[in-house]
Order: sequence, then C-alpha cells, then structure tokens
Amino acid sequence: MKLSLITFSALLPSAFALWPLPTGLSTGTTPLRLSKGFDIKIAIPNPPADLVAAVSRAKGFLANDKLQVLVVDRGASSAGAIANAKSLPSLTLSLAATPKGGSVKSISAEAVAPIESRVEGYTLTVPADGSGAVLKANSTLGLFRGLTTFGQLWYDWEGTTYSLSAPIQISDSPAYPYRGFMLDTARNFFPVSDIKRTIDAMSWVKINTLHWHVVDSQSFPLVIPGYTALSQKGAYSASSVYTPSDVKDIVTYAAARGIDVIPEIDTPGHTSVISKAFPEHIACAEAKPWASFANEPPAGQLRLASEATVNFTAGMLKAAAGLFQSQFFSTGGDEINAKRLFVCGSCYTQDNETQASLSSSGKTLTTLLCDLLEKAPSSGEEMVLDNPVKLANDTIVMVWISSADVQAVANTGFRIVHSASDYFYLDCGHGGWVGDFPAGNSWCDPFKTWQHAFVFDPVANLTAEQSERVLGGQSLLWTEQSGPENLDSTTWPRAASTAELFWTGPGGDVQAALPRLHEEVYRFRQRGVAANSLQPEWCALRPGACDLTA
Amino acid sequence: MKLSLITFSALLPSAFALWPLPTGLSTGTTPLRLSKGFDIKIAIPNPPADLVAAVSRAKGFLANDKLQVLVVDRGASSAGAIANAKSLPSLTLSLAATPKGGSVKSISAEAVAPIESRVEGYTLTVPADGSGAVLKANSTLGLFRGLTTFGQLWYDWEGTTYSLSAPIQISDSPAYPYRGFMLDTARNFFPVSDIKRTIDAMSWVKINTLHWHVVDSQSFPLVIPGYTALSQKGAYSASSVYTPSDVKDIVTYAAARGIDVIPEIDTPGHTSVISKAFPEHIACAEAKPWASFANEPPAGQLRLASEATVNFTAGMLKAAAGLFQSQFFSTGGDEINAKRLFVCGSCYTQDNETQASLSSSGKTLTTLLCDLLEKAPSSGEEMVLDNPVKLANDTIVMVWISSADVQAVANTGFRIVHSASDYFYLDCGHGGWVGDFPAGNSWCDPFKTWQHAFVFDPVANLTAEQSERVLGGQSLLWTEQSGPENLDSTTWPRAASTAELFWTGPGGDVQAALPRLHEEVYRFRQRGVAANSLQPEWCALRPGACDLTA
Repeated sequence: MKLSLITFSALLPSAFALWPLPTGLSTGTTPLRLSKGFDIKIAIPNPPADLVAAVSRAKGFLANDKLQVLVVDRGASSAGAIANAKSLPSLTLSLAATPKGGSVKSISAEAVAPIESRVEGYTLTVPADGSGAVLKANSTLGLFRGLTTFGQLWYDWEGTTYSLSAPIQISDSPAYPYRGFMLDTARNFFPVSDIKRTIDAMSWVKINTLHWHVVDSQSFPLVIPGYTALSQKGAYSASSVYTPSDVKDIVTYAAARGIDVIPEIDTPGHTSVISKAFPEHIACAEAKPWASFANEPPAGQLRLASEATVNFTAGMLKAAAGLFQSQFFSTGGDEINAKRLFVCGSCYTQDNETQASLSSSGKTLTTLLCDLLEKAPSSGEEMVLDNPVKLANDTIVMVWISSADVQAVANTGFRIVHSASDYFYLDCGHGGWVGDFPAGNSWCDPFKTWQHAFVFDPVANLTAEQSERVLGGQSLLWTEQSGPENLDSTTWPRAASTAELFWTGPGGDVQAALPRLHEEVYRFRQRGVAANSLQPEWCALRPGACDLTA
Repeated sequence: MKLSLITFSALLPSAFALWPLPTGLSTGTTPLRLSKGFDIKIAIPNPPADLVAAVSRAKGFLANDKLQVLVVDRGASSAGAIANAKSLPSLTLSLAATPKGGSVKSISAEAVAPIESRVEGYTLTVPADGSGAVLKANSTLGLFRGLTTFGQLWYDWEGTTYSLSAPIQISDSPAYPYRGFMLDTARNFFPVSDIKRTIDAMSWVKINTLHWHVVDSQSFPLVIPGYTALSQKGAYSASSVYTPSDVKDIVTYAAARGIDVIPEIDTPGHTSVISKAFPEHIACAEAKPWASFANEPPAGQLRLASEATVNFTAGMLKAAAGLFQSQFFSTGGDEINAKRLFVCGSCYTQDNETQASLSSSGKTLTTLLCDLLEKAPSSGEEMVLDNPVKLANDTIVMVWISSADVQAVANTGFRIVHSASDYFYLDCGHGGWVGDFPAGNSWCDPFKTWQHAFVFDPVANLTAEQSERVLGGQSLLWTEQSGPENLDSTTWPRAASTAELFWTGPGGDVQAALPRLHEEVYRFRQRGVAANSLQPEWCALRPGACDLTA
C-alpha cells in the first residue's frame, strides 16, 4: 500500500474527476470497487432530514453517473483489475464532535449561518483493503461537502463502479468562505426548474452562494407580498414570475444543498420597471434617448429625494427580504459608483421632483442615499467606492467593475467578494446587443475563458491585513444575451473553474486541471446539465495531448 | 383595401415574423384569421409524397406554433379585431406550368438537382376578403419554400391564428442559389437527432445546403462500406458513428426539406485518424510536437507520394460519395492552401516514405495532388489559391480563410461560396482551447455577431463578371468548443442572419431586421429549437426601443 501526497498544482493520475480539488489529498494505486450492496450509513442519532436526503441523492449518483474514465479505451484495459478488486462495503458518516446542546443542525441551517462561522471542512478515508470508508466532519454541512467529493471518486466499467486510486485520504476545507454564482433573472426570465438545476450543479462543485439578481430595469418577476403590483405590471408575463411559494421552494432547495440564496434588488438605479406600478417613485422613467440616462434601456431610477420614495423603497426591500432567509440582502448601488455617477446626475438634474426636494431639504444626493441604505434591512450592499456612503461595518462589497478596484476597496476596510467583470463575467465577448449598431462590441470583451479565471490571484497587490478581508468570489451571468437556452452551456464548466479557485485557493495550474475539468464536464452531462465542450473529444480522451507544448 | 409595397430594407410593421424577407412583398392592414376548418389543398394530380408530408408539417406548425406577437400586450389590444376578422378557409398549392413529360418531380429530387438549375421561387396570395389563399410555383421545391413563408405569417391570440396584415402578396425567389450551413461532426460528435433538428431549422429559413464536415483528424464517425475499419478504429465510440442507414436517413430527411447534403472529407491534411486503421497511408501520424506539423492536434496527412495511398484515397472517397446523392463532394484541401503550405512541407520533408517516392517518380507534391484530385469523384473542392492545382471547371471554391481572398479566387474563374472566417464562423471568440495556454485567444476573434454577417457585401470589390460567379454563402460551426450542448444556441439565430443575406440579397438594415429576427427566435423555440436571446425580452417586446439611437 503506497500513499503519495498530491498537492493541487501537481499532475494527478490521468483521470481523477475531483472538482474542486481537495486541499489535502493522498491517493494510492490499488483498484477498488463498490460492493453490490454498497450502502451509506449515517452514524448520527436522529439525523436531519436534509442529510438523509443528501445521502439518498449521493447513492443515486453512484448508481446512475455511469461515467467512464476519460482515456482512449475508457477503462477496458483495467477490466481485469476491476473484476479482481476488493469491494468497498460502505461509507459511514459521523460528526467528529457532539454538537453543543446535543441537537444536530441541519445542512439547511448551517448553509445560511453567518458566513465566517460556517464549517465546510471534512475528512474522508477510503481504505484499499475492503474495510468501510469513513467521512467525518464537524457539521452536517461538512458532511455534505464530503459526500459530494465521495461521489466524484468513481468511474464505471460495464456496470461496476470503481476507482484505481485506493487508498484515498482526503482532508479538505475551503480556502475562502464565499464561493458564488450570480444569475440575472430580469433581463430574461428563467423558470424555477432552470434555477433548481443550476443549484444542483453549483452544489456539485461546492459553490455555496446563489447571488440572485432577481429584478432589474427590464422586468420585475418577484412577487412581493404587499407590493404585488410590481410583478403584476412589471413581469414579462403572468407566468414569468417567482411567487413567494417559488422563492421558498428555491431557497429551501438551495439550503438543503449547502447554498445560501442572497437576493439582490438594485437601488437607486436599475429600477425603471417600478414605474409601471408606482410611477411617482421613478425619475426619468423610460426617458429618451435612454443612452443619456442609463447604461442600457430603459432609463429610470428611484426618486431618492422624496421621503415617500425612500419609505416605499425601504418597505418594499423589507418585504422582499422577508421572503428569503439569508443574512445578506443586496441593494446593489452599481449605478452610483464612481464611474457611473454622471448617469444618476444627468437624470436627477433633469427631474423636477428631485430638484424640488433637494432645495427644500437642503440635503445632498449622498445624504439621501445614506438615509435609504440605513433603512434597508440589509447587512450587505454593493460597493460605493468614491461615494462617501456610510455602510454598516459588516457590509460585503462586491467588486464588479474591474479587478483593479480591489485594492481601493480593501483600503476602506470592508470585506470583499471578487466579482470583477474582467475575470468573472460569463456574458462577455458576444458582441454588442443594442440595436442599430452593427459594429458593436461587448463592453467587457473578450470572452472570459475558464483558464483566465482559474489563474486569477485574489490577493494580488493586497497587504496581509487586506487579504484577510477577501471573502471569496463568484462567476456572474448577466442575461442581456442569455436565457434558458444557453444557461447550462454558458455557465458550465466556467463557473466550476471559479469555484475551484475559491475552494482550493489560487495557484492552480491549467495544464494539470484540464483533464479533471473535462471529467467534471462529462459528469455534469451524465447528471443532466449540458456543460459545454472545452476541446475536441480527442483531446478529452488524451490528457495533455492538446497542450500547446505536447 | 390598401396595398403597400415593402422592400426588404424598409421598416416592416412592428411585428411581422418573415425570415428571410421575401424579395417581393406587399401587405395590407386588414385582420384575417384561419378558419377552424382551415385546410391546405394540393391542386396537383398524384402529388409527390414529400410535398404531401410538407403540407402536413405546415398544418402542424399552424396549429402548434402558438406564437404571440412580440409587442407589450402580446396582441390583447387586437382581440376585438381578430374576433371580427374574416376567416381564411384554405391555401391551395398548384404548379404554374405543366411539368415536362407530365410527371411532377418531388421536392427531394429538385433539392439535389444541379444547383443553378433549381427553381425555388413562388408566388403567394392571401386575400383579405375571406376567399382562399393561393400558392403557385414552377416546382415542388418552390411550393415548399412558399409553404414555409405561409407558416410565418401568423400569430396566436388565445387559440385563434391570425394576421393583421392582409391582404398579403408575395413574389419571392432567392438572390443566390447556394445558402448553406456547415456542421463539423468530427471534433465533437452529434447524434442523428441533433442533425435532423438542425435540418428542420435550416429549412425554416430556406437554407438549402448542409455542408457536412463529417470526419477530420480527430475522429472518423462515417461508416464507409468497404472501409469500415476507419470508423471502427477512428470513431470516438462504437455508438458515435453514422452508419449508411443513418446517412440515408439524414440525406432523405434533408432532401424532403429542400436541402442538399454535401459531404466533406478533407484531404490530404486533417487525416490523422486514418492512421488508426491504415497507418501505411498517413505521414507524421500523431507526430510531436503537433504544433510543428499541424494547426491543431493530432498531426497526420495522406502520403500522397505513394501510389497505394492515392488509390486508397480515391477508392475511399468514391465509396463515401456513394452514400450521398449530392452532385457535390468536398475533398477539402484546406491544409494545402497558401497560408498553410509550410505545414505540409514540414511533414513531408521529414517523412521518409514521401521522400523516397518523390525521388523515384520525379514528381512534385503539386503534381501528386493533381493526381489525387483528378481521381476523386467530386465536382467541388475547397480552394487552392496559390497552388496550381488543376480543378475541374465546375468546381465550387469555398473561400474560408478571409473575405479578403475572394477577389483573387474570383480571378481564377471558379464559382465561389462565401465561407469566410471573418464573417461566417460561428465558433470564433470563445478563447483559445489548446491546453497549457491560459492567455490564448480564439484565432478568429472576435465573436461574429448576426449583425456583422448581415451587412456583409458578397460582391464587394468584384467586377460584374466576377460577381456572377458568387453562388452564395454559408455559416459554419467548427466544433473544437461546441457539441450537442450548445448547438442550437450557438447556431441560431446567427445562421438565420446569413440565410437572409443570401436569400433576400445584400443591403439589409439591421435596425429594420431586428424585430423580425426576434420573432424568428421565438418561433424557433415554439418549434423546439433553442435559439439564443438577442436582447432582454424588454427589447424584444418593444421594437426599436433598444436601438442605440432610441
């Protein structure tokens, strides 16, 4: 029995479909197969229902993945070794310590706990000698992460589920506590089934946050109790909505998969659609030419100078937040950052209501914005770099314009989530989409490849103290040019690349990672998610053969 | 009753989902709906079975499209007008002239006739007064094109199929006889069902050629009688193949939809995979480093200096051609064009077999290539600009490297099909795909938008005489980074843009076209093809509102 320590940047055996790569991993070279009666046992009294369900799903994946190893013979040359391999009878899950108070928290509860308090680490031991495998963690959330890893250890050969790499010893925990994916359901609508399928896929690569950009200027699909006119008049159609029941379904589904759902309702910009139901609260609603007022059509932003509007907005945000269980709520603010302040200014300057309120109150736009944000029921807002907006100390700032802004934000003392357009925007590089402009380019050209995000350094140019404020990062899918039709193929596997960056930590090597990412793509497809091809299958079956230097 | 002549560059009524736009079209403003008993009649004795089937499909689309008009109220404000509209009882198809010899040719037969002899024009009259509609053509192929147009005239409002634009008078015929789509099934494999769905979609926009790049260096999915070892050893898997029965199915399916299937088997480059079964015929098979021998891995090309290889290749191509019914067969040649000749040279110089044959025969590579091409059973090969290869006069040259090469090819006197990478490659702009190269860009950056192709001028810088040699053009999907997962969303609606360019002719205006293209996207989705979003739905429902100047 030989154990070799493998670090995340080293070349793994030609096929080993772990994604993200565990932070501590050692493997052997002994074949092992799942016994016909293989079972997953939960050695926890009265286990939470979502852990029981997760075990059931894990068993389903083991039975149904049927992923053949990605080498030319797809495993045929190992058939003899597989047939003669010892059988793994079971995997047993247990908590390393008795929980305080004796009651075990569910995955769902742990998934939405304060972000820096979550415990996602685990240890997993798969012996080569036919004795049972053991998964231990300090939380059910950690057990769920370990279960996910266990499900990636196996290949199929003619109905036998096997590994060639036993014994396997994993001690794993994430480099960063925030690993997200942002979906915009306002530019184009996505049915609940698409969101749930995406949540499943996210969980497979240990993403723990769905940053749900649920409404925007173009449509308001969220049905908010007490404010239902917003969706009645602002959704694309009566069926293109998320009811409170849908939201609960999504939030529950996500939490059971270790994922916190952070809703985002942008303010004060990106709010044109509110004018359909509440015209009194929106300045410059659908004003023309739109390009003078907004970065994309339609124009319109909250009349922050109006006390009635501030009260309306605070009440609406509070009601919306009540639909979710996350500790965070994003109120955006991306129209008021430094680079776009002129846009707001241009609108407000021309809005009589705003000018009247400003002169009567003696307030500035900045103080008005402070009023609004302090009323908002959130502990997380998007960045306001050069605007001296007073934010709560526990605010998380998402740096989206450019990775070059990270250092400046770090200087403010706020915690940071990397969301930079120049690395993590999945929509870039598909040309301009506004009409009447044949030569238009994507504003954030070029296309962001998985490799580009994978080699991102989250702490570049930061001091050690500043680096500690980096909570993680996320991929983002803005949907001006996307919809259900290309959701899977546009998102996957690129969002998985970012997931590994923030789980395993920076320093990954694309050459070593590519064969694993191919296998993750093929596994996604086996599970019903249409992940996109990275290369010709000829390359996928020959690790390294399509490297530039091969 | 008011008729207004509308040309293809003028702004149509805000919603009118014709694509490609007919070359002659006049519309009115009278509402009209299909009667409950609406029928399509074929006033032709013993009509061909494929015409009868096409009529059946057209009736299915009329019943099932259920496409609501793309305006904010989706047609609600027209409900009264629709309810009170006269009913169209029928559409009657007839041939304008008695066919020679009295027997009517099938769509399938006409679809594969010599390209410049095909008759695709038709006239379509939809009166506003409740009398029947009339479709006339000089061929069943023309009737099929007219049926396709008829199917695009209608919207749905609560179960009623209606138009607001009667009377409608169309006199339509294509600007160019070749309107194609190329699919590469070698880099990644596509099941037959994907190809048939794509053929359906192609027929909806009157594309008449599937240029099927069936095999390449990476895989050989085509099962060729007498040469079955090629696919047995060269396909990605035993199930990733096209059997003779599959090919017949595809060719028949396409022909019945007015589409000729032109197979392409590249020679002498892009043939590495042949070495799996016939190593003796391939020089530099999988030679390393691949970048010294080929533009992408794996390296390998036919040993043209060997008489045995020439005979093998000619026999194999002839057997392959026997599976198809097209008058054309493409043997590629894109590794021997000017810009890549050094690649061949580099390989052949190092290949002992080639050097021995060359010195014993006294032949040059060019004369050897002539030998090969004269043996090939084709009348169409890809371009060989600076290589003095003797091609048959009826060869069609596909200009793929750059649109800048068109004039030079036109000077050679060959007919031209526009396939330029800088306008029509659908795969560009997704980053580099070779491994170990994080900063790699797509070689044909940037992404080609629908607008970019739409405003292409097929006769730019050509004399009138040269312009006559332009047969048309096509979109192309090379599949290094594509597969079944993104086939629909990558291809559509961009391939439709090119289809209109070559049917309606150049000079189209993207501003006027965009609302129609949105409707074609939505209609595609109603018919099960996952066409990609061009804009937020907010824009799709408000023609013109997202123009840069709106």
